[in-house]
Amino acid sequence: MFDFSDDFVKESGKGMYSLMEQLYPICRSITGNGVRETLKILSKTVPLETKEIPTGTAVFDWTIPKEWNISDAYIKDPKGKKIVDFKNSNLHVLGYSIPVHKKFKLSELKKHLFTLPDYPDSIPYLTSYYREKWGFCLTHNQFDRLEDGEYEVHIDSSLTDGSLTFGEYVIKGKTDDEVLISCYVCHPSMCNDSISGVVLATWLAKLLTKHKNKLHYTYRFLFIPETIGAITWLSLNEKNVHRIKHGLILTCVGDSGGFTYKKSRAGNNMIDLAAQKVLTDSGDKHRILEFDPFVGSDERQYCSPGFNLPVGSMMRTTYPDFSEYHTSKDDLDFVTAKGLGGSFEQYLMIINILENDRTYINLNPKCEPQLGKRGLYDVMGSQKNHEEFHKALFWALNFSDGSHSLLDISIRSSLKFDVVKSAADALCKAGLMRIK
Amino acid sequence: MFDFSDDFVKESGKGMYSLMEQLYPICRSITGNGVRETLKILSKTVPLETKEIPTGTAVFDWTIPKEWNISDAYIKDPKGKKIVDFKNSNLHVLGYSIPVHKKFKLSELKKHLFTLPDYPDSIPYLTSYYREKWGFCLTHNQFDRLEDGEYEVHIDSSLTDGSLTFGEYVIKGKTDDEVLISCYVCHPSMCNDSISGVVLATWLAKLLTKHKNKLHYTYRFLFIPETIGAITWLSLNEKNVHRIKHGLILTCVGDSGGFTYKKSRAGNNMIDLAAQKVLTDSGDKHRILEFDPFVGSDERQYCSPGFNLPVGSMMRTTYPDFSEYHTSKDDLDFVTAKGLGGSFEQYLMIINILENDRTYINLNPKCEPQLGKRGLYDVMGSQKNHEEFHKALFWALNFSDGSHSLLDISIRSSLKFDVVKSAADALCKAGLMRIK
Amino acid sequence: MFDFSDDFVKESGKGMYSLMEQLYPICRSITGNGVRETLKILSKTVPLETKEIPTGTAVFDWTIPKEWNISDAYIKDPKGKKIVDFKNSNLHVLGYSIPVHKKFKLSELKKHLFTLPDYPDSIPYLTSYYREKWGFCLTHNQFDRLEDGEYEVHIDSSLTDGSLTFGEYVIKGKTDDEVLISCYVCHPSMCNDSISGVVLATWLAKLLTKHKNKLHYTYRFLFIPETIGAITWLSLNEKNVHRIKHGLILTCVGDSGGFTYKKSRAGNNMIDLAAQKVLTDSGDKHRILEFDPFVGSDERQYCSPGFNLPVGSMMRTTYPDFSEYHTSKDDLDFVTAKGLGGSFEQYLMIINILENDRTYINLNPKCEPQLGKRGLYDVMGSQKNHEEFHKALFWALNFSDGSHSLLDISIRSSLKFDVVKSAADALCKAGLMRIK
Repeated sequence: MFDFSDDFVKESGKGMYSLMEQLYPICRSITGNGVRETLKILSKTVPLETKEIPTGTAVFDWTIPKEWNISDAYIKDPKGKKIVDFKNSNLHVLGYSIPVHKKFKLSELKKHLFTLPDYPDSIPYLTSYYREKWGFCLTHNQFDRLEDGEYEVHIDSSLTDGSLTFGEYVIKGKTDDEVLISCYVCHPSMCNDSISGVVLATWLAKLLTKHKNKLHYTYRFLFIPETIGAITWLSLNEKNVHRIKHGLILTCVGDSGGFTYKKSRAGNNMIDLAAQKVLTDSGDKHRILEFDPFVGSDERQYCSPGFNLPVGSMMRTTYPDFSEYHTSKDDLDFVTAKGLGGSFEQYLMIINILENDRTYINLNPKCEPQLGKRGLYDVMGSQKNHEEFHKALFWALNFSDGSHSLLDISIRSSLKFDVVKSAADALCKAGLMRIK
Repeated sequence: MFDFSDDFVKESGKGMYSLMEQLYPICRSITGNGVRETLKILSKTVPLETKEIPTGTAVFDWTIPKEWNISDAYIKDPKGKKIVDFKNSNLHVLGYSIPVHKKFKLSELKKHLFTLPDYPDSIPYLTSYYREKWGFCLTHNQFDRLEDGEYEVHIDSSLTDGSLTFGEYVIKGKTDDEVLISCYVCHPSMCNDSISGVVLATWLAKLLTKHKNKLHYTYRFLFIPETIGAITWLSLNEKNVHRIKHGLILTCVGDSGGFTYKKSRAGNNMIDLAAQKVLTDSGDKHRILEFDPFVGSDERQYCSPGFNLPVGSMMRTTYPDFSEYHTSKDDLDFVTAKGLGGSFEQYLMIINILENDRTYINLNPKCEPQLGKRGLYDVMGSQKNHEEFHKALFWALNFSDGSHSLLDISIRSSLKFDVVKSAADALCKAGLMRIK
Repeated sequence: MFDFSDDFVKESGKGMYSLMEQLYPICRSITGNGVRETLKILSKTVPLETKEIPTGTAVFDWTIPKEWNISDAYIKDPKGKKIVDFKNSNLHVLGYSIPVHKKFKLSELKKHLFTLPDYPDSIPYLTSYYREKWGFCLTHNQFDRLEDGEYEVHIDSSLTDGSLTFGEYVIKGKTDDEVLISCYVCHPSMCNDSISGVVLATWLAKLLTKHKNKLHYTYRFLFIPETIGAITWLSLNEKNVHRIKHGLILTCVGDSGGFTYKKSRAGNNMIDLAAQKVLTDSGDKHRILEFDPFVGSDERQYCSPGFNLPVGSMMRTTYPDFSEYHTSKDDLDFVTAKGLGGSFEQYLMIINILENDRTYINLNPKCEPQLGKRGLYDVMGSQKNHEEFHKALFWALNFSDGSHSLLDISIRSSLKFDVVKSAADALCKAGLMRIK
């Protein structure tokens, strides 16, 4: 279905990396102008719709929080020198910090400072969305250099009634059945966690838009703040979520590690089989994780028991497993164009399976049909003719009994999905099979 | 539920060992005064009821045999010296030996002598309940020293109409559903096989009696002769065995080996899952055995196809796997207070699961509830906060969909049962879950 | 059921080898006099019926082809010397070659020559049944020696309306339920592939004929050309194939390799369990292959989705895994009497299970029956009496609950099938069990 030698695919890594460079500096949070700016940049590539949900709106057990914006923040040392500056890294400010401008003794200040002693030159990423606080995150090396005295603290932020902002983009396919592609736009300057998924979703949206006349499924792209955004979207769209037949959470797709697939809650949905088949066929080392309702991203909401949607997540190195996770080291060096490009291809292969998997009926189920007279088989039968396509003809015929889809057959035969699909196409053309 | 730091639990090993020292010297069999004396000693700890079933009573395919008692037995050598003496070890006499007082040539005598050539200093334990015989068991070293000549044989036993004796003790819980705790009181002086299970059952009865107002299940303790006792009890109680929801056979629980769990016939009863979960959580090396209708104790009767009760057996080293088995070497040195105490804790952990496993319903099944506002979750969400309790909150919520009990959830999450139970309690208190 | 110490069994390898020596020189194909000659030889041992199906008959998607016969063929080099001669090996001629008598330049001739460069002294076996061609197969060494010049080519063959010939032999058992024993008689001089299966089928037919009054199943032996023969037979017998309860394809049973069992399409038919049990009990290294609709013999037809018959295949080294496969090296040296004899025994053990597997009902399902009083058990119960027969008594009783057959019980207990069968017989005799 997709031409992997096409320039768009071949250049996808560079394109996504370039988009990531634009998104990286923005200070995002679960609300505020950072999200709006991000969506505005994405909308140059994909005509997404931006939605604003007012502060105070009830969404299931939650309430849309106040909107947070920030323009500046710093700590000045006793000599008046800025030693921690929001302008250097937006991770320096505890997310959702309330405004403050005051002097503190070092001992008092320290109650508001957060570091990672085990990674002394990394700034940690921390937030306090639902309890009003202020704080600064800094490297442990910076922290160790602090001397006694009085420090001037300044956070020019606002926490006011406003709205939660998210982006949504839908490509209508031949059916109302949907594939959900969900990523999150609430993390400030970190690349692999969050932004890599955002640029990958954008690139998928761009490519699928080109194919929109041929798509079987309707594709729904969500660019939302994590957790509260997924809860908000589910709350607003409760009546239509039954249309979601397959879904993926996009994050941690830009590093150089091997792939990891985290299964949906049920664990045996078609998206799980398709993702695992792609990994198996790659021949590369990979990991399969069972669904986990604690360690995870928005699948925790999509797979909550009241929804139990078939949503998995294809990643490279998973979120808690890289030391750069949730620190300033998850930067433009940690993610590569090659890493992004490889992930793009992996996702296309999954979508290819979703789009093409069908169950067929063998119209000549009693004994093998004579393939030779239809030009489908080399009649010099005794040669050791084990080409994959020929194998696939026999597998497709034998198991197209109405109970096995092409994906099932490709898994059982260890043949690549595309080969089985080609065989099914040839057999349909020859009048030997039809779609169930 | 149980306080493992409580003195009763901590001192249990010593207490059981001391009780075992009292029981060890008694010459027990499947009937007779040895059983009565044993039950009398136990009744000082547990107010069990002693039952007597008359000789000749039909119990399924069997008949209660004659009662056997013995007061003395010996072999005198040609010089009149007692070379084998029942007073030294009650294993010296073949169980159920008929009375005899007569002189025999060595060659004749040898037909009645039993030894273990492979373990030349062990006296074997042998019986002939259902074919009238007499005989002596001795060490192979003793046997090798026998010289030609005439030997005087004396067995002062009786085999008369009487009864089969067993003990029963019931602790009534909140429901009529029962947990069966079965051990056997028919073995003479052997510690691990038989007596270790008897003292453990007694200690469990003692502790559960203290908790009787809180127990969900009714606990039924059986102190019976092996095989014929189980058959007798089942025959007398056929109408009520459907109440038995879980059961365990207690034996071989006093040695120093790792634990072995033998599954019930069905293999996937809750008792099987609970026992295996306790073993997995221990982190210690252990063995799981499939049900075996040949090698076993009274589960052979409880799990006969006409009953098929959910009865397993948690042991340390299993019966045929220690060389001391069914010999005089299964003595007070082979069993230790520490071994008994560890087994006691293991059983308490299983009972803890049985008592507390319930299926809950998540009352807020659509998306995660906001745990932070209920004080259940540290709102600094980005810290690597992976404490077990927090994990358990999310697992309990996600899988409390009516199909998964706490035990199921603890198995799937690899979290300890108690942690999942605590999380469920906290969630119920917060109004987020209820028992199904 | 079968006496493995019987002379017929012990001498079976030699007998089959001797029959193979007679069959080896004949030039067989999917039609023609070679098949008739083969069946005539077999009919001296087994009174099989020979059937002729006319050219042009429609059989499902196929048509019976013209009949092919050949009397001579050679290539003469420029000096007039016969350098390739059908009389030396019938593999030299491409199967179904049309007649030709003409001179060719070497370059032209080469388009009709086939070799195996990787096995330079082997003649390959090739055919062109459904596209009219002529050709010669020769060793790559022969091919390399060919010098420029004009070659005389002669193939004295005929391709005319005639018939497809096959043999069928049925032994009527007590029931109409059938066991299908299918082998193929279409290969020219190759021993392991094809002929080994033919002689094994013949020997099984001979032995089962002797036992015919005791057989539970009806045994149907097919001696057919591969593929087109199976299709033909299925087409002619479509209404009765439902009688086939178990089936085996016999081929590759004469080499010295370990056993390989290829499962039926469903994979869990009784024939699959029986074959695997025989392999497990042997203690020998073996392989189990899943059903494969591409690499295979006539199970590809019997297991086509419109039939899905319970047909597997017990082989030694499987067809594509030995380098002699489909070459002149698959000769009388590659196959041994010992290899054939061992396969014969393996098949008898499978048939033994099929014939004797029944589900029994324990008539005393509540607790164990008292085996001692029925002479079935040594009452000296405490001896470590672990003989297999005694074990089997307990396993048979416990699992004869109407849901487990003797085969199921023997698999679950790891006891040999015959031991479990003997136990069941003894228990029936004692009135403790009956056939369901």
